[in-house]
Amino acid sequence: MYRTHTCGELNIKDINKEVELSGWVQKIRKLGGMTFIDLRDRYGITQLVFDENQNAELCQKADKLGREFVIKIKGKIIERSNKNPNIPTGDIEIIVSELTVLNNSEIPPFTIEDETDGGDELRMKFRYLDLRRNPVKENLLLRHKIVKEVRNYLDSQNFIEVETPVLIKSTPEGARDFVVPSRMNSGEFYALPQSPQVFKQLLMISGFDRYYQIVKCFRDEDLRADRQPEFTQIDCEMSFVEQEDILSTFEGLIKDLLKKTKAIDVKDAFPKISYDEAMSSYGNDKPDIRFGMKIKELTTIVQNKDFQVFNKVRYVGGICAKGCASYSRKQLDALTKFVQKPQIGAKGLVYVKFNEDGSFKSSVDKFYNTEDFEKWAELLGADRGDLLLILAGDKNITLNALAELRLEMGTRLNLRKPGVFAPLWVVDFPLLEWNEESQRFHAKHHPFTMPKTEDMHLIEKEPAKVRANAYDLVINGVEIGGGSLRIYNTGLQKEMFKHLGFTEEEANKQFGFLMNAFKYGAPPHGGIAFGLDRLVSLFAGVESIRDVIAFPKNNSGRDVMIDSPSAISEIQLKELMLKVVDKENN
Amino acid sequence: MYRTHTCGELNIKDINKEVELSGWVQKIRKLGGMTFIDLRDRYGITQLVFDENQNAELCQKADKLGREFVIKIKGKIIERSNKNPNIPTGDIEIIVSELTVLNNSEIPPFTIEDETDGGDELRMKFRYLDLRRNPVKENLLLRHKIVKEVRNYLDSQNFIEVETPVLIKSTPEGARDFVVPSRMNSGEFYALPQSPQVFKQLLMISGFDRYYQIVKCFRDEDLRADRQPEFTQIDCEMSFVEQEDILSTFEGLIKDLLKKTKAIDVKDAFPKISYDEAMSSYGNDKPDIRFGMKIKELTTIVQNKDFQVFNKVRYVGGICAKGCASYSRKQLDALTKFVQKPQIGAKGLVYVKFNEDGSFKSSVDKFYNTEDFEKWAELLGADRGDLLLILAGDKNITLNALAELRLEMGTRLNLRKPGVFAPLWVVDFPLLEWNEESQRFHAKHHPFTMPKTEDMHLIEKEPAKVRANAYDLVINGVEIGGGSLRIYNTGLQKEMFKHLGFTEEEANKQFGFLMNAFKYGAPPHGGIAFGLDRLVSLFAGVESIRDVIAFPKNNSGRDVMIDSPSAISEIQLKELMLKVVDKENN
Repeated sequence: MYRTHTCGELNIKDINKEVELSGWVQKIRKLGGMTFIDLRDRYGITQLVFDENQNAELCQKADKLGREFVIKIKGKIIERSNKNPNIPTGDIEIIVSELTVLNNSEIPPFTIEDETDGGDELRMKFRYLDLRRNPVKENLLLRHKIVKEVRNYLDSQNFIEVETPVLIKSTPEGARDFVVPSRMNSGEFYALPQSPQVFKQLLMISGFDRYYQIVKCFRDEDLRADRQPEFTQIDCEMSFVEQEDILSTFEGLIKDLLKKTKAIDVKDAFPKISYDEAMSSYGNDKPDIRFGMKIKELTTIVQNKDFQVFNKVRYVGGICAKGCASYSRKQLDALTKFVQKPQIGAKGLVYVKFNEDGSFKSSVDKFYNTEDFEKWAELLGADRGDLLLILAGDKNITLNALAELRLEMGTRLNLRKPGVFAPLWVVDFPLLEWNEESQRFHAKHHPFTMPKTEDMHLIEKEPAKVRANAYDLVINGVEIGGGSLRIYNTGLQKEMFKHLGFTEEEANKQFGFLMNAFKYGAPPHGGIAFGLDRLVSLFAGVESIRDVIAFPKNNSGRDVMIDSPSAISEIQLKELMLKVVDKENN
Repeated sequence: MYRTHTCGELNIKDINKEVELSGWVQKIRKLGGMTFIDLRDRYGITQLVFDENQNAELCQKADKLGREFVIKIKGKIIERSNKNPNIPTGDIEIIVSELTVLNNSEIPPFTIEDETDGGDELRMKFRYLDLRRNPVKENLLLRHKIVKEVRNYLDSQNFIEVETPVLIKSTPEGARDFVVPSRMNSGEFYALPQSPQVFKQLLMISGFDRYYQIVKCFRDEDLRADRQPEFTQIDCEMSFVEQEDILSTFEGLIKDLLKKTKAIDVKDAFPKISYDEAMSSYGNDKPDIRFGMKIKELTTIVQNKDFQVFNKVRYVGGICAKGCASYSRKQLDALTKFVQKPQIGAKGLVYVKFNEDGSFKSSVDKFYNTEDFEKWAELLGADRGDLLLILAGDKNITLNALAELRLEMGTRLNLRKPGVFAPLWVVDFPLLEWNEESQRFHAKHHPFTMPKTEDMHLIEKEPAKVRANAYDLVINGVEIGGGSLRIYNTGLQKEMFKHLGFTEEEANKQFGFLMNAFKYGAPPHGGIAFGLDRLVSLFAGVESIRDVIAFPKNNSGRDVMIDSPSAISEIQLKELMLKVVDKENN
């Protein structure tokens, strides 16, 4: 062993001990005849002292060290005269008696500090150096801790970890698969799993009762919006349960994680709101409920006046921004610009200031009177000093825009506090979703989702109205997990495939083995999957999932550190019976 | 919830309780006016009783159930008159008052019993039913338990679990990679990792100090000998350690596992034997030391007599089979046939019986006298009643044949007892290994293995003699894990690549980022990886790793259950810019 202790554990109780430490040179300072070195390892920083008067040769050797050199030292612990209360080892330092350079270091391409001078691309290329920086390291330590607590919790609930295969079969449904050519079965391909969905259902049919796996999944999608081609799921499934059992089990998991990793004790049950309510009150299915500011529909009370913009639309809705009646022209213009951004897509913004003196000032003063505004204010729960913000247009687009505006106002009013976690369940998702491209209904969750029995009479005539036993866990506006009860009956599953536009042949080809399995005594079952990367980044308080992945890929799916993907040899291609074709000749 | 209890937990203390259970119908028996059903779930079996006299209708309903039907019942626990001491619930049974059929089942293609009538292929095709059988289920539960204990132990030793990427870069060294065509970077490919070797070394350079991961690895090899294209490793790496630190850490892991999962308390340190000793005393580098019967070289003492077979060979060696002097002609012929099998490849077998009366009887009586045999017997540690078995020929082939013969005799003499675990470390592996095909030296372990400093003077002239800081953990003749100290110095790594026949350009292309990383302060480090599938099968006492994998592939790399690999659509191929070529046109 190159050390007797780590750089994070020595303190005042260890005074006078002879110790050996190893680590990286974080910082060197000369002060009079003394050289001070901050020695760093994963566990912390310990200050080393070299005294020219006591050992000039050693001190000279120390002076030749550079940042990020790897050294081993021997020395005696003494109390520091100039203590550093910010670090656990701040009361002591080590008078070094022996110094060994284990490895030297070139000057790193960026500084290994909490705040670095390295740009994104440079840090990705030298990711192994970026990982030395505290913020990145702490994220990965948090990830480890979360994963550990997840396992402990699920284990305490009798879940069994089972590994499902990575080399599986391509299924056209859903996102694009990554495929893997088989050399032993030439012309054929494996696919990498988008999720272990089918296998976990098979494990329920096998009687495993409670399964979990923390597992890599793969999606060959264009990587807009903080996605990675490989990502990690906490994948779970349970038998002989109803929806409520699943929700309470995994509510327990999230509470346990908040307690163990964030020291936050959530006593109350998580709120449950229906998909419909989420859409109408928050404008989307993943509301941030750290703050209220609910969306209210105003369509009927604003229509049939002289304002044609409101009269000719399907939907008018608004929110109330507390205490914002004093917003300036400039501030209101900024909000208008915000909602008009192409990705939000509102036409314009109507505002109503409910002034402190009880009067109203609005961009639609011409068309409405005080009585009108009073009604609006009442509906939106506005008091004197508040600002009403109103959008109108197509219902979906407008709700989405109101959702974005609500979040923007939440941010501006400092209502989305970091360190506050507001979890909730969104339930009663629709079973089906109309797909414009294919002009048919697709499964909103996946084709194995159990419809609500009481809605099944609508499946032929009003399929969009059929709700599913499907649910999402949302925290602070982020969808952390989602799941459903599954169909466990061959007949119902066949019917569902039919409604999803599968011919019987297609259904058999893709899911025949699952349909077959249903014939041999499938138990009622359901499950959930959490996005681990997203969960960790939420808990870590960072924006991007890349910050919680050790070796992430960039937006083109490239690992710029190892320079992958890359060309492979002709021999490899030949063995796989494959040819790369040019764009022109394809 | 479809139950108040599981089928494994009720006992005499629960008498008179009203309970609900759900599970599968394992067995139905009619006895007079009573119907008895064994209800099965993951946790056990509980006996249900239906009494015609009490509830004829319910009893009739029960009579219509078939094997593997999924039912839910409500009933009262009573004491059994006819107790079953073999199961934990054997003291009680349940008088059923309500019966719900949750799902029916077709007759399974094989019986769901410990001993099934289903052949290998059928059970693989219906793997989800095979997994219902106790022996298979128990293997997966053991796997879960082992994995859990591994994590607990490593966590207690400050190891951090870090996920490394699955989509990495193809490297021609070693076994064949599975590759994944990239759609976003057309004509380029990712590779699936054969191990996270490079990434774990980078994590050490990043300062993570102690890393582990239980991780899927991939090798596109022809699948002789119980291999799987995807397999699972317990992958570990440590910084600032010497070889001894790594061995003691992981010796601790194996001891912990034996204790926690097999209730075996190993007090003594694991024996350490050198590669050379393993080869000379056991004939291979993974000795089963549950028994002695060491191989001894006899070359010099048997040569220079009239027996030309011994005179003209490079190596003569033998073993002593205790108490086998009484072997019949037939038994000796069987042993001769055994060593002559093509995969063992010995020419013939010489035996010497050391009879109870002190006389010798041998197949080479003509050429040697009693004095000779006495010398041989002494060298091999033979007593009266023992049998000497001697092979001669090329050294490597003969040692290998002796190794096989030793194991065969161990089996025949019942010395390889199931339930006994004999772990050891094999150390001081050679750094390099001559490869006939490429006519150059390859790394025995991998190109990053640290050579022993004291042997480095031999690297130019006698490269085969240079030993590495590399080690294997072996239990009962099975290599369970292996690892090494790694090179952490750019200069030495460059030299090593040179000796392995890499041009500087090739080395840079393949490992440039690692060589680069070494420049920025790499710590001394080393690690180990264990084959989880092999470890679990050893602990479970089963022959094949397939028995401890939920959804294994067959010898052609096929999953016969989901029928994968399979053809993919022309659209998919086109998006990937790939063409499958015929054998003829390739």
